[in-house]
Amino acid sequence: MLARTQHLFDDATRVTAGDSRWQGRTSEDYWAFVGPFGGATAATILRALIDHPQRAGDPLALTVNFCAPIAQGAFANRSTQHWSVELTQGGTEVATLATAVFAERRPSWSHQQAEFPKAPPFEQILPYPKVAASWVKQYDFRFVEGDPDFSGAAQAAPGNAFSKLWIGDRIPREIDMLSLMSMSDAFFGRVFHARGELVPFGTVSLTTYFHTDAEDLVAEDISRVLAVADAKIFHKSYGDQSGELWSPQGRLLATTHQIAYFKV
Amino acid sequence: MLARTQHLFDDATRVTAGDSRWQGRTSEDYWAFVGPFGGATAATILRALIDHPQRAGDPLALTVNFCAPIAQGAFANRSTQHWSVELTQGGTEVATLATAVFAERRPSWSHQQAEFPKAPPFEQILPYPKVAASWVKQYDFRFVEGDPDFSGAAQAAPGNAFSKLWIGDRIPREIDMLSLMSMSDAFFGRVFHARGELVPFGTVSLTTYFHTDAEDLVAEDISRVLAVADAKIFHKSYGDQSGELWSPQGRLLATTHQIAYFKV
Repeated sequence: MLARTQHLFDDATRVTAGDSRWQGRTSEDYWAFVGPFGGATAATILRALIDHPQRAGDPLALTVNFCAPIAQGAFANRSTQHWSVELTQGGTEVATLATAVFAERRPSWSHQQAEFPKAPPFEQILPYPKVAASWVKQYDFRFVEGDPDFSGAAQAAPGNAFSKLWIGDRIPREIDMLSLMSMSDAFFGRVFHARGELVPFGTVSLTTYFHTDAEDLVAEDISRVLAVADAKIFHKSYGDQSGELWSPQGRLLATTHQIAYFKV
Repeated sequence: MLARTQHLFDDATRVTAGDSRWQGRTSEDYWAFVGPFGGATAATILRALIDHPQRAGDPLALTVNFCAPIAQGAFANRSTQHWSVELTQGGTEVATLATAVFAERRPSWSHQQAEFPKAPPFEQILPYPKVAASWVKQYDFRFVEGDPDFSGAAQAAPGNAFSKLWIGDRIPREIDMLSLMSMSDAFFGRVFHARGELVPFGTVSLTTYFHTDAEDLVAEDISRVLAVADAKIFHKSYGDQSGELWSPQGRLLATTHQIAYFKV
């Protein structure tokens, strides 16, 4: 049933390898109205990596930032700014690698399809008890649903990975872009909830999208967010997480996704 | 109510700027058991960018890949490989910037919490008619739910951004990592569904997580996936999209997220 000759997708995503520099070309077969189809570009990049002589293992996560103005379009979007950041510690080894996009956000049609999660007010919920890790002590977690039970008691079936909670700084601080970023990684590992126990765990890649600009956020004038987090799958030592950070007034401020290592 | 003096979060995420190189330090206040809290690291990177003299606009997307082995842990995970890729065209301007993580995936406890979306078989659904863009012609889209209606007819309320569809190559091709990557960007813009019309649109940043390794995928032996996509918000010229790619046998193969520009 499947094509035995070279498929045009393979032609479109072909690369010529050369050390750490490859060459490819855009494909007319996968052309969109205003430039190449982004999926083919992303697959071409992935192919270059899969074909690299030093490649180890299989693809786990790929983030592609489309930087350049769209080639021939009438609506070239020059209002985004792209960054690549390397964080090194001591020597030259890169400890953390990041890409970021900034945007001058213009007024537009606005529509929030996602529903604000229902929750009793922050003040009516007891704070989650302090735990040993210092970072956890810096936050005031108030669980509405999915309180952690890390007792390790025998489970008939995997626990629900969903949690809903209020998150604020233990010492109140106005929510800004920086705290949204940090809080987007402040969920307990979903695998802890699914397993009902603490297991070796580490975030491998984290992406956060901001649905507010700094001006909107100042207008919210808040010191806590209502947060939800969930997972879809745990398989072969890696699991996912999706989260949302909401203002108490019901505005979706940020969404966040991560893939994390676990050992069970 | 809010702290008026320097908050310890601001201390923890402080950076000393210097052209395109900044210095910061880990914080004991935000220490996790086996290294710094990732959220604080991410916020530190974001602060360095926000404080950069050439920064334009507000944060839209940030992806952070945690590369180095965890500092003092007993379970340092040396099985991931991190890549940074720049795609240039013609001159030196970077057109596309990507980061990728590869992993040697070891057997582990496995649990798929997400439910396989119900759908009639591929063969029972009519293909979506060809449209002008060449890339769309390379795929065989069969809509189960959320058929596009881009007529631009007056709407009483925004349309539902959710779609469920089968996706295969028009000329069948065995699904591999590359086609999963490409198909993860093969959804129509969610804003088209919400608006019921085609509007200027472009993906800005796309992240795909793989929940299968190459070996698993070969065992699936498939030439199409069942895909769902949805959006949570459209605001100030940018909107999000989340998607899932499933094997016909009910395995979640990949999840994907993107933030896209639109003009309405």
